[in-house]
Amino acid sequence: MNTLTVIKIGGNVIDDPAALKRFLTAFASVSGMKVLIHGGGKIATQVADKLGIQTTMVEGRRITDQPMLDVVTMVYGGLVNKQIVAKLQALDINAIGLTGADGGTVLAKKRPVKDIDYGMVGDIEEVNSGQIQFFLRQNLTPVFAPITYSQTGDLLNTNADTMASAIAVDMVGHNAVTLVYCFEKKGVLADPTDDHSVIGELTPSLYAEHKAAGSINKGMIPKLDNAFKALGNGVSKVIICHADEVAAALQQGAGTTLRLDD
Amino acid sequence: MNTLTVIKIGGNVIDDPAALKRFLTAFASVSGMKVLIHGGGKIATQVADKLGIQTTMVEGRRITDQPMLDVVTMVYGGLVNKQIVAKLQALDINAIGLTGADGGTVLAKKRPVKDIDYGMVGDIEEVNSGQIQFFLRQNLTPVFAPITYSQTGDLLNTNADTMASAIAVDMVGHNAVTLVYCFEKKGVLADPTDDHSVIGELTPSLYAEHKAAGSINKGMIPKLDNAFKALGNGVSKVIICHADEVAAALQQGAGTTLRLDD
Repeated sequence: MNTLTVIKIGGNVIDDPAALKRFLTAFASVSGMKVLIHGGGKIATQVADKLGIQTTMVEGRRITDQPMLDVVTMVYGGLVNKQIVAKLQALDINAIGLTGADGGTVLAKKRPVKDIDYGMVGDIEEVNSGQIQFFLRQNLTPVFAPITYSQTGDLLNTNADTMASAIAVDMVGHNAVTLVYCFEKKGVLADPTDDHSVIGELTPSLYAEHKAAGSINKGMIPKLDNAFKALGNGVSKVIICHADEVAAALQQGAGTTLRLDD
Repeated sequence: MNTLTVIKIGGNVIDDPAALKRFLTAFASVSGMKVLIHGGGKIATQVADKLGIQTTMVEGRRITDQPMLDVVTMVYGGLVNKQIVAKLQALDINAIGLTGADGGTVLAKKRPVKDIDYGMVGDIEEVNSGQIQFFLRQNLTPVFAPITYSQTGDLLNTNADTMASAIAVDMVGHNAVTLVYCFEKKGVLADPTDDHSVIGELTPSLYAEHKAAGSINKGMIPKLDNAFKALGNGVSKVIICHADEVAAALQQGAGTTLRLDD
């Protein structure tokens, strides 16, 4: 079975041209089949501000109304995605930029309105793993913007972390899948105030201990819950690492590797 | 040999949601393999204005500086392209939105500076017809934004008419190709002031007569020169028609069909 590496890169790297260049060079050097999912960074907010589009917040959460969706589509689906693709082409990677609408790769459903109407936000319904596999077999490297589509032909804003794990899980039938979340820290930290306290290997039992002790907390918890869920659904390995260390982390020389308990 | 229809749709249709919907429904009904190339319309200019990006004109021609290229990439490569793809998906067409950078489909070279520096404008060097054919064979319908890329990893603004004819010509080795230019007129007019004076069939000799008489003039001349060049390079048929009449024009019931002299 072929190995497939699904890598998610966050917005903070997108916002820093030098960091993005370093990351893309490292990404290009990753051997075997690979898929990139990128976030959007602050450019969308900046463009929205300049266009006079107000960011609507409800109970502290951003709402994607139609004007904001248009900005997200422009910035994530256009500017960021195509710049990454062109740069990867120059690094001899035959990249193909996609939203979930392209090739019908990631179908979603507009999130139902319960207490809050999140607007044009999509919850993933189905990943067309056969289509993605078909690109990979032709030596194409899919680069996904965090945008999906509905059966009624609407584009929908979708969380990039969620999109990465959904794609990784759905590719399990075709490949041995490694999922990598790159962000601005060196990995999962045993002490959130100490950047050098990276936990090398994290199992569900060790995770439970750290949660009980309060050393893993806040935003890290949903990220790790999501990551362990991917492991539980057949992903072989999940790595959380700094964007600069993706190559080393894949050799287990950096970052945090998540594994299920023996 | 399979038939392939390459259709170029202009900016005026993009700018009009109702006209775009009519066109996409007609496009979806075109049988056989097909490729769509779209222009950008006025949205790019509007977005640039709102972002405070000045349009630089030199001798009456627009210059694509880096900020304007970013706007073009956002609007053409993101917003317009992805909206078309999502709408085609809802019409059961498995569309895939591409710039020339995606899959390395259309490589270009930054236009050399002679009298005028056009900025980030690309002259097409090579169409990767094998890659496009590979998408078509998998029942994918490529939808191109008029953006190409260079070997150095830069995105480049490229004329949509030129991109359509370059793709059509390069697909000749694989298919019997029909190239359709959709615009706001009903076809090539024998009398530019009379919208009903559509020339049904235009040959090089008839074209020469109309040029000599002055009844075909101005912007129509480079368009037709380009179209006859495509015919000379193996494209089976070129049609010029109104966007609302693409289906009829393909049955030769509307628009102008260009043919070489017997």
